[in-house]
Amino acid sequence: MSKIISGFSKLTKEEKIQWLAENYFNNTLDTVKIIKQYWNIDNDLQQLHDDFIENTISNFYMPLGVAPNFIINDRVYAVPMVVEESSVVAAASLVAKFWSTRGGFKTKVIGTTKIGQVHFMFAGNKIDLETYFNTNKTELFAATASITKNMEKRGGGILDIKLVDKTDKLANYYQLHITFETKDSMGANFINSCLEAIANEFRNDEIEIVMSILSNYVPECLVRAEVSCKIEELGGENPQKFAEKFYQAIKIAEIEPYRAVTHNKGIMNGVDAVVLATGNDFRAVEAGVHAYASRSGQYTSLSHCSIDDGIFKFWIELPLALGTVGGLTALHPMAKLSLEMLQKPSARTLMQVMAAAGLAQNFAALRALTTKGIQHGHMKMHLQNILNQLGATEEEKIEITNYFDKRTVSHSAVVTKFNQLRKPIISWVDFLNFDEVRAKLSTLKVDNAPVFGKMNSQQMIEHLSAVTQIANGNWKVDAFVSDDKMARRRPFLNTENELQMGFKASFLSEEPNDLKFTSIDAAIDDLINQIQVFVKVFTDDKNRIIVHPFFGELDFDYWKKFQVKHFTHHFKQFGLV
Amino acid sequence: MSKIISGFSKLTKEEKIQWLAENYFNNTLDTVKIIKQYWNIDNDLQQLHDDFIENTISNFYMPLGVAPNFIINDRVYAVPMVVEESSVVAAASLVAKFWSTRGGFKTKVIGTTKIGQVHFMFAGNKIDLETYFNTNKTELFAATASITKNMEKRGGGILDIKLVDKTDKLANYYQLHITFETKDSMGANFINSCLEAIANEFRNDEIEIVMSILSNYVPECLVRAEVSCKIEELGGENPQKFAEKFYQAIKIAEIEPYRAVTHNKGIMNGVDAVVLATGNDFRAVEAGVHAYASRSGQYTSLSHCSIDDGIFKFWIELPLALGTVGGLTALHPMAKLSLEMLQKPSARTLMQVMAAAGLAQNFAALRALTTKGIQHGHMKMHLQNILNQLGATEEEKIEITNYFDKRTVSHSAVVTKFNQLRKPIISWVDFLNFDEVRAKLSTLKVDNAPVFGKMNSQQMIEHLSAVTQIANGNWKVDAFVSDDKMARRRPFLNTENELQMGFKASFLSEEPNDLKFTSIDAAIDDLINQIQVFVKVFTDDKNRIIVHPFFGELDFDYWKKFQVKHFTHHFKQFGLV
Repeated sequence: MSKIISGFSKLTKEEKIQWLAENYFNNTLDTVKIIKQYWNIDNDLQQLHDDFIENTISNFYMPLGVAPNFIINDRVYAVPMVVEESSVVAAASLVAKFWSTRGGFKTKVIGTTKIGQVHFMFAGNKIDLETYFNTNKTELFAATASITKNMEKRGGGILDIKLVDKTDKLANYYQLHITFETKDSMGANFINSCLEAIANEFRNDEIEIVMSILSNYVPECLVRAEVSCKIEELGGENPQKFAEKFYQAIKIAEIEPYRAVTHNKGIMNGVDAVVLATGNDFRAVEAGVHAYASRSGQYTSLSHCSIDDGIFKFWIELPLALGTVGGLTALHPMAKLSLEMLQKPSARTLMQVMAAAGLAQNFAALRALTTKGIQHGHMKMHLQNILNQLGATEEEKIEITNYFDKRTVSHSAVVTKFNQLRKPIISWVDFLNFDEVRAKLSTLKVDNAPVFGKMNSQQMIEHLSAVTQIANGNWKVDAFVSDDKMARRRPFLNTENELQMGFKASFLSEEPNDLKFTSIDAAIDDLINQIQVFVKVFTDDKNRIIVHPFFGELDFDYWKKFQVKHFTHHFKQFGLV
Repeated sequence: MSKIISGFSKLTKEEKIQWLAENYFNNTLDTVKIIKQYWNIDNDLQQLHDDFIENTISNFYMPLGVAPNFIINDRVYAVPMVVEESSVVAAASLVAKFWSTRGGFKTKVIGTTKIGQVHFMFAGNKIDLETYFNTNKTELFAATASITKNMEKRGGGILDIKLVDKTDKLANYYQLHITFETKDSMGANFINSCLEAIANEFRNDEIEIVMSILSNYVPECLVRAEVSCKIEELGGENPQKFAEKFYQAIKIAEIEPYRAVTHNKGIMNGVDAVVLATGNDFRAVEAGVHAYASRSGQYTSLSHCSIDDGIFKFWIELPLALGTVGGLTALHPMAKLSLEMLQKPSARTLMQVMAAAGLAQNFAALRALTTKGIQHGHMKMHLQNILNQLGATEEEKIEITNYFDKRTVSHSAVVTKFNQLRKPIISWVDFLNFDEVRAKLSTLKVDNAPVFGKMNSQQMIEHLSAVTQIANGNWKVDAFVSDDKMARRRPFLNTENELQMGFKASFLSEEPNDLKFTSIDAAIDDLINQIQVFVKVFTDDKNRIIVHPFFGELDFDYWKKFQVKHFTHHFKQFGLV
């Protein structure tokens, strides 16, 4: 099975899939079926999508959701959002609705200037370079005439070309720093073509062009979005308190990079969802936005908040280089549809919609974080996903959802609850009920086979006695349990969970011990005796704490909890409960 | 048509679509059809995808491509990539193949520690807080027992909880800074649930919890990827030169943020494509990576290069918090398939695959930039997209692709070429051929209707004469053309493009001038005469330069080029060519 291949790109789509399925998957037929079930039934449409990139084998579905009720500068938008993360669209919708009755979003474009650079090396005299640049500047513009023709018709083009000396940072390194207006197109191809034409015109024997490329850092292609209202209009139980905690959360994101990164990540949940839906390039937007967040020398929050004269104000400034023409915008039918849903916006308008979506997302996150915690809403969604994954029935879903209404959702907690629902209820053994313990154990014969493990029935009884003797102080086990481990393990004893089947503490020998007693009955007598001692030693000394070799320092209460689990575990081993 | 809606989320999918189509689209039926043509024909499968987020109306197809031949630590991978940008998969494939014969990618995980924080305000004595924290630290661990249970079985859990004093940055602000190991899960839900449990345990009357949330800044969850070989093994015409330019390009990205942002954006093209394909969260990854790039206080390159002792070495370090279990990884059938294609990797392995994909992408970009320029390869793809958009036939595609083999692709250049192919060839008018000019114009009658514009035939002839007289110095037009405009406009005269139909220079009056001559023949005589003067004045003074009111300063050559276009334009106006 050779997995290196030559000429993969020249194979047909079917051949590519066949080769992959045979070489990288266990079940070739199933793999091919899964890949093909995502193909569109319209061949032409599928071909269109296949041609967007290379070596395409199928479509990766990203859900397209819609957040209605965004009022932006008094106009209503339904915002298309493509995102795989739950809660993002719900949050955007809720916040859009919330602000729709409080004046909506106010947005404005601060600038639309884009940037490209020709990076070059020049070892000669700087004055000569400046003279050469100034003399030829007009020709540099002229060199792009055929490229800029259409852009100029739309009111765009090259704004300026500057020579920048960077030799203090890197020997002989200079740039042509070129600014562009690209109107409704993102302009990457336009800018790069201009730069290469300019570089071609500019190069000479002394000027070595290293590269010519646009910058995704666009601090002058900037948009602002804001919401504001009187504090009392914020609603809820205590709007003043809400506003203050919100303000604190923003201040923290402004000064603490670990928080700022996640704060801004939440903003980008909203922004990127619209970027994707409209066929824009999220890597470009992400790079520009996060670099902008670090422009002061310390990575910081992109959004800000003020509370002045009883007015709560919350705003954001984002650098966004977008296109509403060119690229995928017209080619991808769903991107086109998204743009139509947004009423065919200019790039300037789209910048404002995205800024509003980002601000909305940030508002939702901070509101949740500073009130009920982020997990509350998010976990409700997460819970449904886990239940789907487990194949829960509708009845089970309802019961488990109710159960977690006031409880912390975690994957393991849900699985435990689910298993409990499907499992018979545990009959905990009351090990202090001597009569019951004796009655149950007396039914055992020497040759009863265990459900799990290697012990026979008498060995099991002697084992219960031995472990009880640890608590009693007769068996000194040389085991150290660190504080950390103890802190993590001991709380298990407070849960309703059983010891795992087949679990074997490391302090026990691999094989069962030799028998101490001549009969099961004698072993039972010994066990009952040790339980009585157990009660006595802890009753005599209320402060008695004995190290359990796995759970660490346990007092009487914890030892009793352990014993219940331990006895139940071994009674199960022989089918006694 | 009210576009604000209540209860949108409670509508069925069909109802949502109907409402959107009626309120935000021109053609309701078409809109519904486009949205539905992207639904999967398997209802259950579609339902699964609909449930990932809220208000889902359809699937947004992202192409899933494959880059084979990635050798990473001596194991071969076919890497699934989800990306909408052309060239990314092709570049990854080429570079993977390139390095597969040069030792492949060497990668290693440097750390896997993740971070969460409980942010809180405390106005009391700091020593008291420290005492409170130290006393209760064990309980903080214990508070997460039910949440950490499963994670600990897999070898993960909470690593440490630290109290951090941030009051120098913000009054009364402290954190619990908590480190986690989350093994193969990304761990966002796990970490957030732990944090909220810890915050609950930690809060008291003096401690006000602001929020509890994981950080997407994960500088200790780090992976490194590297390629290296002897310089002569790099191949190409001049491997030494190639290595040096490559090195220069890296140095530039290290010191110049405008370049670094785009440099890293290219890296993320590769990383995000695998992030998406495997059901991970690209916003989280992007935020963490770019913040990491700015950690020194200046945004810088994520990749680095060295040339020592004839060895070319190129490497990257990336913070990547990923999951190969949990989240969408098992729920999204295509994410699951992608993970199977990668041979069911651990999160650690997936980190290494992504780092290799990012490094490959960066290598491809720098190789293109420092040699043929980024547009060469990219534009080939772009060209095909434009041709598809224009509906070019296969023959037209071949001809236009050949035409642009050595030419700069721009949208307008392709459209021009395409239109040329479909249009009859232009018959340029040789305005210096007096006989031909006279012969053609003589066929005109006074009542010939123009194809465009308002002039009649004689007015047109007199207009040609008038404009010629600008060059001849008889007609002084008061027009100023700035250097910038001239630089942009004049190069048009060097192209094979025609003046646009209906174009009217701003210096001309809105209505045609009154007639100067009594007949068409007299006007023709005058025109021929002015052309003769035109030739004479420029021949007499070789340095003669006359300002054209639109194109600016033109010498004889440029004026002749203009005249050819101008005569052709007006001859066309009356169907003479």
